[in-house]
Amino acid sequence: MDKSKSRHITNPARRTFLKQAGMGAAASMGLWPAVLTSCTGADGKNSKIVKYFSEGDVILFQGDSITDAGRDKNQQLPNHARSFGMGYAYILAAGLMKDLADKDLTFYNRGISGNKVYQLAERWQEDCLDLKPDILSILIGVNDYWHMRNGRYDGTPEVYEEDYRELLNRTKSELPDIKLVICEPFVLTGTSAVDEYWLEPFGEYQEIASKLAGEFDATWVPFQKAFTEAAGIAPPVYWTHDGVHPSMPGCQLMAETWLNALD
Amino acid sequence: MDKSKSRHITNPARRTFLKQAGMGAAASMGLWPAVLTSCTGADGKNSKIVKYFSEGDVILFQGDSITDAGRDKNQQLPNHARSFGMGYAYILAAGLMKDLADKDLTFYNRGISGNKVYQLAERWQEDCLDLKPDILSILIGVNDYWHMRNGRYDGTPEVYEEDYRELLNRTKSELPDIKLVICEPFVLTGTSAVDEYWLEPFGEYQEIASKLAGEFDATWVPFQKAFTEAAGIAPPVYWTHDGVHPSMPGCQLMAETWLNALD
Repeated sequence: MDKSKSRHITNPARRTFLKQAGMGAAASMGLWPAVLTSCTGADGKNSKIVKYFSEGDVILFQGDSITDAGRDKNQQLPNHARSFGMGYAYILAAGLMKDLADKDLTFYNRGISGNKVYQLAERWQEDCLDLKPDILSILIGVNDYWHMRNGRYDGTPEVYEEDYRELLNRTKSELPDIKLVICEPFVLTGTSAVDEYWLEPFGEYQEIASKLAGEFDATWVPFQKAFTEAAGIAPPVYWTHDGVHPSMPGCQLMAETWLNALD
Repeated sequence: MDKSKSRHITNPARRTFLKQAGMGAAASMGLWPAVLTSCTGADGKNSKIVKYFSEGDVILFQGDSITDAGRDKNQQLPNHARSFGMGYAYILAAGLMKDLADKDLTFYNRGISGNKVYQLAERWQEDCLDLKPDILSILIGVNDYWHMRNGRYDGTPEVYEEDYRELLNRTKSELPDIKLVICEPFVLTGTSAVDEYWLEPFGEYQEIASKLAGEFDATWVPFQKAFTEAAGIAPPVYWTHDGVHPSMPGCQLMAETWLNALD
């Protein structure tokens, strides 16, 4: 595993120039919007995002298949397309690496398809704590419900809550300064795998994730609202064919929702 | 091959609502910047991009390994992550599908690793003309030079120009209303495969591509300038390890440069 922070050398001369010219990172490069509109964060959103990331930060994406997104697990390199798969984590890492190129950020993806919370716990030492992330983003829960629903798992909402809380406590105890981002598990009905009977029981899992975000002072990413609203613009299957796994525009929607949630 | 345009059903009720509310696509959804900044194109860039794409447009990305980006060639589905690989075409298609969700756009990627212009020509009927693109984006040329340089190909700049012009004539003759986007082939020195001796001879290929963009009234995407400028912010290898294939931030840079070039 390549955990070197120095893989991407920064350019001190360039940074000095920007500082001397009175240009912060937001003004000099901006996030996507700046490039497209020359509008460098009229409402302060851009500078909020820029400030969220410190120089040398290690950012880890954790979760299930939605995070995995078909990544190559043979090498698991940081900042490397094949190791990132084709999902929201790729879009986020590519965009942030481009816009914050002077911050020497290191991005890892360690999502694994099919995972539930207890399976994150089983690999947490190697796939989280050893990587010493400064920022940890977790999206987990849909399989905790889905696999129970289809008889492949005997977990309950209580087990989800207990396992998840224990995982977060373990993380904070080992890495007290970590910044946590807890993502809301989401579904869309009117798709190939999800019908209306999911909503009430799955809502319990969503509420637990939200409650834990509050308990652990984590950034909360409201994916359900984003997908529900998007389904008013194009049909649910446009955003996620089976109601669980996002399409290409679904991944872009997730990346934008994640960025907007940062505080 | 799935060429159905109706795969993604639009939502007429929603579109009617937006029209009645006096909100165009730019105001209602915006491109990435709007989502992040609530700044819906102060300089008109966003609305220019929105207007460039018409409802039902088919967009085709063509080229070599930079466009291919590890895409799965078994199915070659439109609007599908695995069929798009992990490159600029994925970032562009995901972003545009999200922001223009009411336009029912169809995106194909048909880049193939190692291709030179004559190899595009060999598969042009199946991999371009049969798909009937409304918008065709081509990035080709680095192998025309590179493979000649390392003795694997006997082409010259003249062959590149002749083959490329013939390909474009054939395309315009078959699809007279097509909108062409010609991307500049690019390299960065100070990387593992590209040194300063590339610049002058490779520049001939870049000039030819630019000249053809003018001849065919195509949108010209100035990738070389984008990468050269980016190399002032972070080292060349941050954007492309070997000087030819873009990294994750390199792919994001390409996607933004491509969008900015639209007219």
